Amino acid sequence: MSLNPKRTVAELKELRELTSDENGAQRVAWTDVWQKARKWFATKLVGLPIEHHYDTAGNNWVTLKGESQKALLIGGHLDSVPNGGWLDGSLNVLAGLEVLRRFATECKGKPPMTIRLVDWADEEGARFGRSLMGSSAFAGTHSIAADRVRTDRDGITMEEALRRCGVHMDRFPEAEKERANAAAYLELHIEQGPVLEKMNLPLGVVLGTKGVERHAITFHGQEAHSGATPMKLRRDALGAAAKLALEIRTIAAKYEDAVCTMGSLKTFPGIVTAVVGRSEAMLDQRDLDAKVLAQMYEEAQQASRRFASEEGCTVEWSRIWSIEPIPFHPHLLDLCEQSVREISGGSHRLPSGPLHDAAEVSRAAIPTVMMFVQSLRGISHNKIEDTREDHLEMSVAALDRLAAKTVDWILQTR
Amino acid sequence: MSLNPKRTVAELKELRELTSDENGAQRVAWTDVWQKARKWFATKLVGLPIEHHYDTAGNNWVTLKGESQKALLIGGHLDSVPNGGWLDGSLNVLAGLEVLRRFATECKGKPPMTIRLVDWADEEGARFGRSLMGSSAFAGTHSIAADRVRTDRDGITMEEALRRCGVHMDRFPEAEKERANAAAYLELHIEQGPVLEKMNLPLGVVLGTKGVERHAITFHGQEAHSGATPMKLRRDALGAAAKLALEIRTIAAKYEDAVCTMGSLKTFPGIVTAVVGRSEAMLDQRDLDAKVLAQMYEEAQQASRRFASEEGCTVEWSRIWSIEPIPFHPHLLDLCEQSVREISGGSHRLPSGPLHDAAEVSRAAIPTVMMFVQSLRGISHNKIEDTREDHLEMSVAALDRLAAKTVDWILQTR
Repeated sequence: MSLNPKRTVAELKELRELTSDENGAQRVAWTDVWQKARKWFATKLVGLPIEHHYDTAGNNWVTLKGESQKALLIGGHLDSVPNGGWLDGSLNVLAGLEVLRRFATECKGKPPMTIRLVDWADEEGARFGRSLMGSSAFAGTHSIAADRVRTDRDGITMEEALRRCGVHMDRFPEAEKERANAAAYLELHIEQGPVLEKMNLPLGVVLGTKGVERHAITFHGQEAHSGATPMKLRRDALGAAAKLALEIRTIAAKYEDAVCTMGSLKTFPGIVTAVVGRSEAMLDQRDLDAKVLAQMYEEAQQASRRFASEEGCTVEWSRIWSIEPIPFHPHLLDLCEQSVREISGGSHRLPSGPLHDAAEVSRAAIPTVMMFVQSLRGISHNKIEDTREDHLEMSVAALDRLAAKTVDWILQTR
Repeated sequence: MSLNPKRTVAELKELRELTSDENGAQRVAWTDVWQKARKWFATKLVGLPIEHHYDTAGNNWVTLKGESQKALLIGGHLDSVPNGGWLDGSLNVLAGLEVLRRFATECKGKPPMTIRLVDWADEEGARFGRSLMGSSAFAGTHSIAADRVRTDRDGITMEEALRRCGVHMDRFPEAEKERANAAAYLELHIEQGPVLEKMNLPLGVVLGTKGVERHAITFHGQEAHSGATPMKLRRDALGAAAKLALEIRTIAAKYEDAVCTMGSLKTFPGIVTAVVGRSEAMLDQRDLDAKVLAQMYEEAQQASRRFASEEGCTVEWSRIWSIEPIPFHPHLLDLCEQSVREISGGSHRLPSGPLHDAAEVSRAAIPTVMMFVQSLRGISHNKIEDTREDHLEMSVAALDRLAAKTVDWILQTR
């Protein structure tokens, strides 16, 4: 049996049924629902001539051994944000599974080179604010010491949450073994933005991922009684944070395509009868140009100090995570464009604002490329995230075409 | 034995030792620590010729029966905000206890009229955002239907939390029985603001309490990916809330002595990888002048609609609670001023920005007055809340003096 993209769409719907509620997908990494998704995925492997295991960082590997030990990697992630969509991450995994099935069938269980499918652990970082966790362990760029003490909103540490899932952070470095023989990495993903929809194109080629600066910012003011403290004598930590929430938008607007987001703001003690004594914000800044990114980060820091001073507060910055802009492999960009044009007629090259595991894999010097499929309304990380079914089917076919071209390229040249 | 204000200070320290941690007082109503404080208080009643019971709203009553059934009420509250101070509410109760002891001793267990001490339940509203709960039940101004479904941050309903403490909200109206024979109500409190300290006065007379408008405000925007959503296409619910957090300060500044506070702001989904789709703010506005208060409320509403529109959001307002300005009884103001002058040499009349149970008692047409003792640095609702010990002792003496004058007034004229 050859490639069956309709099966991928059906499996995506099956997964949605299993792991969503009325608010959307709930496959947050290191939770029961996520583990349920992975168990369901394992049932799809039954009967395939593959080896299946989890590495020491919780990444989920499916290997179809080939004539050559050289391996083509295809990846995605089954984890989602809370109240997420049905496609983000899962499309990648299930399209990759369909490609792997096609190789297994056409090559009678033994393709010319090894094909490996990976479902990365905790791409989203939704619970602990640390994205690309599993792929960073694979790439050797993890930050165990800083990450293990992160806590979720219930005060559970990252180390403890992972241990409950059988993953011991001390053993993360062993996941680097999975890099052996990796010759290229491919990742299909929904665009999560409005560009392809506006251009009326089903598919696009991803130039690389924008660099990211991600920081926790805490303003310390003075908690005081809401009724008894005159306005002029307040040291209002929410006032300072509110100014910064607005200023980061002015900063982003200076640079084309740059984005700055305050995705979380918490107030303490957070009661109606007290002026906010402490506010905690999370800031995410992204751009393709490393110089622009550094400039935006500096401007936000300066603004925060100015607002703290105006409000009688102090401010602390703590880097949660950062990554430099990652350009993808030039020849794989060409192969991706050929595949996209063959399947859909047109193509467009665009950067990715969202981060992806492909960025970490590329940092490990493995030739990498990503393909985007159009998102409706540009909405993601939300239950209304969607893509036309004919576009989903085209994306599976284009990924398969890209995989075939990449196998040929590796065997011929590398 | 006559009045012993040093005992009051010692008892306040004993209570602090028992119910505080390194972050301050933790006597939040309907929690174990609060119940521990009340049990400790009950041990202080042993040997006194009093009757002790809890009413159906959880208010804690101590009655010293007198020759006349007419009752002088003295009140306070043992509950605190989380990470609160050692004096707010507790000073009132323990100073009142000292006054009651003085009546019991001097009058050989039978004063000329009944003296009642009340420790109100849940003055602060820290857990459910509903202040003056017990005193509103007493006054008949409670709002059971709206309040019972309130939830704390763990999702526990107010009705359930109260039931665990043996209080059934359906039975709140029975607490009105406690109003029988009430002839006057006195309450001593720390100022919680900077006015008396700036005037170098230990004690002051409270003219009344400012009116309050307290609202929950929710902005609905569109959750979207932090990396993929261009700045211009965002519908950022935090942007709208941040504008309002700043605008309420401009509104308050138009009116002398008015205050507007956003004490809590929550963001949803509240993760670093998503533009905020929903923000929930709590707004508290206060002024002595009912017209000013109504005007500030209207201005904040208009501003919120403008900001929602600018940000592509919608906005909803929901009244949490409100109270009109409450002036205290003119003759009791005079008696309070006499008492303050006799003990401390000077006096000043000032409004109270913070709300107090005295406001609810006054609404029940019981002649009421409050006395303030100076707060150091004007700080309250915080572990650094403090008052000089000699000022605390003077406040107990002045409250006792006021109680004596009030008893004479009631017996002579009412």
